[in-house]
Amino acid sequence: MKTIKDMNILIVGLGLMGGSYAMALKKQGIKVNAITKEQDSIDYAIENGIIDKGSTEIDADMIGEADLVVFALYPNVFKKWIEENQNYLKSGSIITDVTGVKTSVVYDIQKILRDDVEFIAAHPMAGREVYGVRNSDPSIFEKANYIVTPTEKNTSEAIRLCKELGEMLGFLRVSALSPEEHDEVIGFVSQLTHCIAITLMTCNEKENLEKYTGDSFRDLTRIARINEDMWSELFMMNKAALLTQMDMFEERFIDLRKMIRTDNVEGIKEMMRHSTKRRALFDK
Amino acid sequence: MKTIKDMNILIVGLGLMGGSYAMALKKQGIKVNAITKEQDSIDYAIENGIIDKGSTEIDADMIGEADLVVFALYPNVFKKWIEENQNYLKSGSIITDVTGVKTSVVYDIQKILRDDVEFIAAHPMAGREVYGVRNSDPSIFEKANYIVTPTEKNTSEAIRLCKELGEMLGFLRVSALSPEEHDEVIGFVSQLTHCIAITLMTCNEKENLEKYTGDSFRDLTRIARINEDMWSELFMMNKAALLTQMDMFEERFIDLRKMIRTDNVEGIKEMMRHSTKRRALFDK
Repeated sequence: MKTIKDMNILIVGLGLMGGSYAMALKKQGIKVNAITKEQDSIDYAIENGIIDKGSTEIDADMIGEADLVVFALYPNVFKKWIEENQNYLKSGSIITDVTGVKTSVVYDIQKILRDDVEFIAAHPMAGREVYGVRNSDPSIFEKANYIVTPTEKNTSEAIRLCKELGEMLGFLRVSALSPEEHDEVIGFVSQLTHCIAITLMTCNEKENLEKYTGDSFRDLTRIARINEDMWSELFMMNKAALLTQMDMFEERFIDLRKMIRTDNVEGIKEMMRHSTKRRALFDK
Repeated sequence: MKTIKDMNILIVGLGLMGGSYAMALKKQGIKVNAITKEQDSIDYAIENGIIDKGSTEIDADMIGEADLVVFALYPNVFKKWIEENQNYLKSGSIITDVTGVKTSVVYDIQKILRDDVEFIAAHPMAGREVYGVRNSDPSIFEKANYIVTPTEKNTSEAIRLCKELGEMLGFLRVSALSPEEHDEVIGFVSQLTHCIAITLMTCNEKENLEKYTGDSFRDLTRIARINEDMWSELFMMNKAALLTQMDMFEERFIDLRKMIRTDNVEGIKEMMRHSTKRRALFDK
């Protein structure tokens, strides 16, 4: 049975996430190469022992010797890469990704991919507010969830390997959801929260608010520092699920507003008790 | 000139906030007494050197010897206390509070208060998700803001003393706002954020969401564990300002929803860039 330990791994896209994958794997003695756009990222990664070899080109040999390829690219760049370069992939190799939306990516890739290569998708739910390989840090995985999103086209062997990867990376919890369930959940816990944070951060232009701000406001807007290219693409690729989640939030917000306006103190208290009880489930 | 160091201080309401005030002041050798409902709180506070003396009764002598009285009570309890017991206050004494809303409290108290006692209001913007004197911890003030909210009735001497109190408690920043400005700002940075957190926490009843949750969702719902008695009262006492802030948020949220629905990617990116830039002001 194949195991990650014995594999030759290629990371495509050596940013924060690709770099953190590479660091976690290299620490365990696994061979990791990388293909990325910037020579500077390659140089930094080699100097710091984050990868073995790297290239800014579509290096046929490097691609061809990989047993497992991790694509840490924006979704649309990922699709384009597969269309243009999949002929270099080794027969029998497995590819995976780190994309934050699944339905709009997984089926497309599986459809265009060669029959002798298998794509098993995964979403590492970790990140930082900074970018690039220089900020790589595998400790971001320690308290985070890793979700594998298999389809009917996936073999149990590839699903097992992908879960093994999540465990080797050091994730707290490795689980599996269908792409559709994944996108619904992510629309809520991740995308809706980012929508709320950027709305809160931009709905009041009053000056000097930072002087009077407590921890609550800082907590709710931490993620309002946001990579606009990545997140606008994620929103668009999960549009239907996200709009549904936004509607659910808005409906409840309007309920609360009405209770405040009409002095329905008992209704507000009931909502707060429910909120307190439900939040306890989310303590780590 | 009077200074906090030489004063006899009385805390009325020995919970988390009253207890943290007492600890911070006692550490600096100041005499602190307390009146509170539970004998258990008094016993704990005396055993642990948090106060000098305490009483569960309206102790005329203890009230009468205080130069500065800090009311750490719910707003309505505070008003009732003043109505019933202000005759025991020392002539020339100063009273202050910790209430999170100001317009609906400050003017009422100043109106009913004896002419020879001065009420200078303040809002220590610190807290924890736990309650009671046993959880008191003056370190909660270290990174927090303290806002004095004087009116035309206040003397510059009382304003100065109240600011001195904030500095002695160890607050990061001590500032002053009118009660109206305070309530507008608090409606936004504190009350609206709590409305958002409890809405997010209760708008989706799907099970097992905690398994797939990242830090963003946890950050946005930390304050969804909420004391329903205190916060429903705060919402009601600042209703007009809060409803205005809720409307501002909702309007912007609807704008964002529309941009997502109509694939207005450039509009979304512009909002995200603005959000990122504005959030940078709030880094500590």
